[in-house]
Amino acid sequence: MVIFFEKFARLSLKSTFIWSLCPQYSTALTTVGRALIVRSSQLIQHRYVHSRGLGASPANPGAAPPRLPFSRVTQEVLAFFRTLLPGRTITDPDLLKSSNVDWLKTVEGNSEVLLRPKTTEEVSQILRHCSERNLAVCPQGGNTGLVGGSVPVFDEIILSTSLMNQVITFDNISGILTCQAGCVLENLSNYLEERDFIMPLDLGAKGSCHIGGNVSTNAGGLRLLRYGSLRGTVLGLEVVLADGRILKCLATLRKDNTGYDLKQLFIGSEGTLGVITAVSILCPRKPKAVNVAFLGCSSFQQLLETFQYCRGMLGEILSAFEFLDASCMSLLEKHLKLTNPITESPFYIVIETAGSNATHDEEKLHQFLEEVMTSSLVTDGTVATEATKIKALWSLRERVTEALTHEGYTYKYDISLPVEKIYDLVQDMRGHLGDMAKNVVGYGHVGDGNLHLNITSPSKDPALLAAIEPYVYEWTSEWKGSISAEHGLGLKKRNYIYYSKPSEAVALMGSIKAMLDPKGILNPYKTLPDNIH
Amino acid sequence: MVIFFEKFARLSLKSTFIWSLCPQYSTALTTVGRALIVRSSQLIQHRYVHSRGLGASPANPGAAPPRLPFSRVTQEVLAFFRTLLPGRTITDPDLLKSSNVDWLKTVEGNSEVLLRPKTTEEVSQILRHCSERNLAVCPQGGNTGLVGGSVPVFDEIILSTSLMNQVITFDNISGILTCQAGCVLENLSNYLEERDFIMPLDLGAKGSCHIGGNVSTNAGGLRLLRYGSLRGTVLGLEVVLADGRILKCLATLRKDNTGYDLKQLFIGSEGTLGVITAVSILCPRKPKAVNVAFLGCSSFQQLLETFQYCRGMLGEILSAFEFLDASCMSLLEKHLKLTNPITESPFYIVIETAGSNATHDEEKLHQFLEEVMTSSLVTDGTVATEATKIKALWSLRERVTEALTHEGYTYKYDISLPVEKIYDLVQDMRGHLGDMAKNVVGYGHVGDGNLHLNITSPSKDPALLAAIEPYVYEWTSEWKGSISAEHGLGLKKRNYIYYSKPSEAVALMGSIKAMLDPKGILNPYKTLPDNIH
Repeated sequence: MVIFFEKFARLSLKSTFIWSLCPQYSTALTTVGRALIVRSSQLIQHRYVHSRGLGASPANPGAAPPRLPFSRVTQEVLAFFRTLLPGRTITDPDLLKSSNVDWLKTVEGNSEVLLRPKTTEEVSQILRHCSERNLAVCPQGGNTGLVGGSVPVFDEIILSTSLMNQVITFDNISGILTCQAGCVLENLSNYLEERDFIMPLDLGAKGSCHIGGNVSTNAGGLRLLRYGSLRGTVLGLEVVLADGRILKCLATLRKDNTGYDLKQLFIGSEGTLGVITAVSILCPRKPKAVNVAFLGCSSFQQLLETFQYCRGMLGEILSAFEFLDASCMSLLEKHLKLTNPITESPFYIVIETAGSNATHDEEKLHQFLEEVMTSSLVTDGTVATEATKIKALWSLRERVTEALTHEGYTYKYDISLPVEKIYDLVQDMRGHLGDMAKNVVGYGHVGDGNLHLNITSPSKDPALLAAIEPYVYEWTSEWKGSISAEHGLGLKKRNYIYYSKPSEAVALMGSIKAMLDPKGILNPYKTLPDNIH
Repeated sequence: MVIFFEKFARLSLKSTFIWSLCPQYSTALTTVGRALIVRSSQLIQHRYVHSRGLGASPANPGAAPPRLPFSRVTQEVLAFFRTLLPGRTITDPDLLKSSNVDWLKTVEGNSEVLLRPKTTEEVSQILRHCSERNLAVCPQGGNTGLVGGSVPVFDEIILSTSLMNQVITFDNISGILTCQAGCVLENLSNYLEERDFIMPLDLGAKGSCHIGGNVSTNAGGLRLLRYGSLRGTVLGLEVVLADGRILKCLATLRKDNTGYDLKQLFIGSEGTLGVITAVSILCPRKPKAVNVAFLGCSSFQQLLETFQYCRGMLGEILSAFEFLDASCMSLLEKHLKLTNPITESPFYIVIETAGSNATHDEEKLHQFLEEVMTSSLVTDGTVATEATKIKALWSLRERVTEALTHEGYTYKYDISLPVEKIYDLVQDMRGHLGDMAKNVVGYGHVGDGNLHLNITSPSKDPALLAAIEPYVYEWTSEWKGSISAEHGLGLKKRNYIYYSKPSEAVALMGSIKAMLDPKGILNPYKTLPDNIH
């Protein structure tokens, strides 16, 4: 097995800047028009929506709809906020600028006031005031979302959780952390690591994103394969409802079967049903050993078989099983001058283990590698156990997003599919687009059945986009996939929901919205499709 | 470490009958009266409710309220059902008997018709018919519930899922199983074990309980510590709503962030919001090695410290950390003639590991045992690796329930608390009750912070009960615990909900119920407190 460690020397260690594993939308979605989509023997008619905002074009389902008849912020309203939040009611346009535009700079609002409450009571008073006056509110965490969900679309009041950044309690027996919603994920990670625990989620945006935003968007990220989704690890939430009522469901219990689990309504609903003000979450122990293997496979079928061996032989220590294709590797080599540490292959795998015993973990990993190389499932590979080398191997997976930005314009899709189908979409798309696209590449979280499909073009190309959409959504829908695996719907994808959800479910979402936020003041124009408003 | 294996010889292997790990209610709860409970600076007034049903007494919050004005089943209704479900519309009183009474024989209804649909479409037609005619319906799975949630209270029509027992699909790459709601848990376990997978939950009632019932009650059980709750492992549900609408959210994806996660509404809502007709669930690989250790501790504080070492050193292979106290052991010895395999101790721990490599797992376990014995946290212990010996060690934990039944009458509580508080409740209760109780014993799932508190008496004793309740609920509430960790509320505990949930949350539960089941025909008298109806 020395071969693996020796091979590592071939890997360039230049790359230290870590990008998110998640592809990031650098484009506003454009025309679908009156596309008729047949789904589950159901005819769904996509409506024209009016367009607005950066990059919007007519009949673009991802563009903003017309402004709804909310009230405007008056001097009286501002006076109320200034009394409630002295020095924390921001109206300076320069200071508001970064909160009005999303991280990708594809959606920009015109909010004239940013509020920075410190307490749940303040959030309650803000919402009560807004509800009484029919003022729209955009809750904002770290503003790292990729679907335009975290910025105002028009003049919604921005309610930032940035000053709600206190850890409330941590129990080092149960591993349960309770904190305010505005705690930055990385700060929580550091706090926990000092106490020999870790957060159950990790994201590329961890330096900026807030735990409240993570929960509101049901963030996935790098540890989902191992620790499961936030729906299992979040134990309690404190939420302020649209009318200012405070819902205190901040339980710190692993088990509680006393009635409906209301907190689930607010996980992943993108701030449209309530503002999360505090979170309690179950945190795993910090692993004592981490290993990363970078392997090559000659077909996707072999990659899938390797995944099965991996689950069987690495079992409980497997913490990531990611892939990229040869086209991704070419872009890494071409644009970032990274060196492929192994023999050229059609597919590459990144496997991470995290466990409590370094010797055992290495033995398991090496037994697995011997098995998959002996059976020729894997053609070549290299392993790292040191932190810097682990980081270097990970960068081959993490920097694909960065490499793509050098190709011109990239159309990005975050698709969930049955794991055996994820690469078929890439291949079908290549055949479908032919010479229209410069590159059609695939990478992502095999362990979660989550494909990041990226299609590049020298520049923005409406004809190419029209060839991609709705094809990509229809394809996903046909295989019962999700058109947004982890990014949510936000503004940009709200009208595409019918590709992944039946109309009865969307209608029920509308009933829930109407029940909890009858005036629709919370994060309007997001998550729910326009025909539900 | 040979000492552990040698000591094992001292354990009697007579006990082969496996009981549930969960305590089972063998009593109807009685008078709380106009108890005033101060909770979170909030005054909650418990209302008198009318009483009815087996064992009910006046002003008993656990007894049935008066029958609500639902329609009666007519010949015309029966004719409809007989046409829809020929041979599967049961009206013979003898055949109905076992479906009218709960497993504990503490709640008995008077339903005159039991329906056995085979398809979701049939369930839809049943509910549409019942909704139009204002007929109440009691959905029933394996009828193994412990809080009177699975049987009719009056003449509700029983809708059984027993013939909806087909596996729909299983994907051996992702481990995702999709099946009808009436599949018996043990049958699913056997089906999966043949394919090298396991169900993510295991219960004492697995031979009878249905997966639909497990999901409807958010069952906890033996594997929660390792695989998490059903809120994370259930990936999709198909549900028929009260008016017959079918909600098809049967996704088989690990990630899907397209809109609100509606399935969560039906997990743990005990059939009051919809009838689950199919489930998709993420199943773990079958572990290749299982070990069980039985240890003694001289104090609960040492037991908690042992738990911390255990989480650190066994980490990813830890699958159970359970405890029983010396009083439990005395009862096992006295009534079941089981032999304590180790030196007498105030507390006993059962630790289970499940992993992918037998050698590694044994090494980890032995390193951990050496550590806790060297540091005197554990006074004595024994380990088993063979299936029959594992079963014998587990029986010391699992047969506590059985031993208790020999003591006379047992008052049982299923309490969730911060893990460091769980045994304080047992000790406080001992002091509080003094000589009134014959025994006050504690056992349960330390890993989940779930205490099974049991108080015995030679026979039913209203004075003892009055001393226990509401004391036990107030104590739990004061420490922000849950008065039902895993059993749900059903009929018996519905009015105790305010001890664990704020009134705003209960009110919101009422709004959700009104939205999804405006006529209240689905499992009436359950889960929601009487003041919400």
